Amino acid sequence: MKIAIAGAGAMGSRIGLMLHQSGNEVLLIDRWPAHIEAIRTNGLIADFNGKEVVAKLPIYSPEEIIESNEHVDLIVALTKANQLDDMFCSIQSIITDNTYVLCLLNGLGHEDVLEKYVPKKNILFGITMWTAGLAGPGKVTLLGDGEIELENLEPEGEAFTKKVVEVFQEANLNPIYSHNVRYSIWRKACVNGTLNGLCTILDCNIAELGAQKAAESMVRTIVSEFASIAAKEGIILDQEEVYQHIASTYDPDNIGLHYPSMYQDLIKNHRLTEIDYINGAIWRKGQKYDIATPYCAFLTQLVHAKEGILGAE
Amino acid sequence: MKIAIAGAGAMGSRIGLMLHQSGNEVLLIDRWPAHIEAIRTNGLIADFNGKEVVAKLPIYSPEEIIESNEHVDLIVALTKANQLDDMFCSIQSIITDNTYVLCLLNGLGHEDVLEKYVPKKNILFGITMWTAGLAGPGKVTLLGDGEIELENLEPEGEAFTKKVVEVFQEANLNPIYSHNVRYSIWRKACVNGTLNGLCTILDCNIAELGAQKAAESMVRTIVSEFASIAAKEGIILDQEEVYQHIASTYDPDNIGLHYPSMYQDLIKNHRLTEIDYINGAIWRKGQKYDIATPYCAFLTQLVHAKEGILGAE
Repeated sequence: MKIAIAGAGAMGSRIGLMLHQSGNEVLLIDRWPAHIEAIRTNGLIADFNGKEVVAKLPIYSPEEIIESNEHVDLIVALTKANQLDDMFCSIQSIITDNTYVLCLLNGLGHEDVLEKYVPKKNILFGITMWTAGLAGPGKVTLLGDGEIELENLEPEGEAFTKKVVEVFQEANLNPIYSHNVRYSIWRKACVNGTLNGLCTILDCNIAELGAQKAAESMVRTIVSEFASIAAKEGIILDQEEVYQHIASTYDPDNIGLHYPSMYQDLIKNHRLTEIDYINGAIWRKGQKYDIATPYCAFLTQLVHAKEGILGAE
Repeated sequence: MKIAIAGAGAMGSRIGLMLHQSGNEVLLIDRWPAHIEAIRTNGLIADFNGKEVVAKLPIYSPEEIIESNEHVDLIVALTKANQLDDMFCSIQSIITDNTYVLCLLNGLGHEDVLEKYVPKKNILFGITMWTAGLAGPGKVTLLGDGEIELENLEPEGEAFTKKVVEVFQEANLNPIYSHNVRYSIWRKACVNGTLNGLCTILDCNIAELGAQKAAESMVRTIVSEFASIAAKEGIILDQEEVYQHIASTYDPDNIGLHYPSMYQDLIKNHRLTEIDYINGAIWRKGQKYDIATPYCAFLTQLVHAKEGILGAE
């Protein structure tokens, strides 16, 4: 299969590399000049479970991919949430009637962006439980195991999606053809909607958050706001199961000692966050549906204020 | 007048010192051993607008003041909010039928504590616009000018309160006999309920908070929650005036470069905060009146979580 990875950060590099290793034709698309330069000069260098792997993968900026006249069967979307629209606006000329898009971004509301550029029947959604770290331009750290759950948005997309599952299976990406990927996306959004914002604002790791007496009530309230919006969109979240799932992450033997990605973006690297696509999406949808979501609203405002105070870009 | 200052921190020391200078008999009561020791050895040492003043003021622990068999005309309450109950429980034997209490604490709900120890007709409330800083045990920094607005809780207290106004006038404390001190207390609680918690959680000064786009909506929402509870208690806050008053503090030429007291308590000194008597009081009253106050609730939870993370005591 000919596959473009739109957004070749840590996770995009992992998926691109594994699909390349199993014999697919993979193109990386990214906007970071130092990353592009490093991969062109040295290849993509991965610490793959302790073993160094170097892969000579082609990488393009969005402008270059258009000039190349390449067309692909599948685009795996893995940009930052706030860069998705810009990326697809830039690369739309590589999208044909036969191009499918698999969106693996965290957060909510990405279908509104993708439907501007791709027919709904060509859109697949998924979530990934793989991890990946960026060690520097052109260098990634790929440890542990994971899986990818995916599903076509429309019934017509089933045949192609099952082909993607086969291709991902051959790449050892452990795909699961889902029958309710939207539920999984909402469930994962609850995890990100609690741990990300709270650890960022409180400047702590997941275990430290979980150790606070106030954590349970804050997390349950935020989950209930997600659930009230999800219900309006036809997804009935099992709030108790979601809460227990989040609480299980506090364990230092689970991911408790981890600082969520939003913390790393904002507190460590002073970069803008994806809050508008997590709690901010709930706030916007709440205004649309006339449902109060004050914890999501306040957390979104606090994170934006913190972005301003730290001069995040 | 014979006056005890219950809680002789920075502000208690200021008021005690100024009342002493104008000829009143002043006793300080405090729990901090190093502070007591320093004042006994060297006197209270004040940087009084750039001039060093040393005052040999008697200072007692609550246990010592009871043993002393002293009785006073007036107790000025200036403990930390969370120490008020403990202080008055400890010193109740010095309170006679003719002892009045002037409560100058920030925050809300202190009458519930004081009424356990003093008849309502002997309670005066006030707010102070003086500032004071603690430079170390026994040492205070007293700069600038201020005033104290005060009023008796019950009509019977008027004659004594007017006597207090005279005494404070002679001490240059600029007293104002108020006709609506409860309004002023609520208005000041709005200032503390926005600037204190937000600057603490965002780790910023007042000007940095005010420079954020999200600040206006957060501040207005919190003020509206205070106003809805105040209305239930018969105080109709002018929300726009209160908002503009808060916004005026952002100016670096006003107090914009200042870090609020809660920030200094928690972020700088890792001490427990007064949040339960500011936003937490609104949250509790909201539950009692069945009025939603989610911003105050969430801010209270965040500050408590931060106390836990920093190991505040």
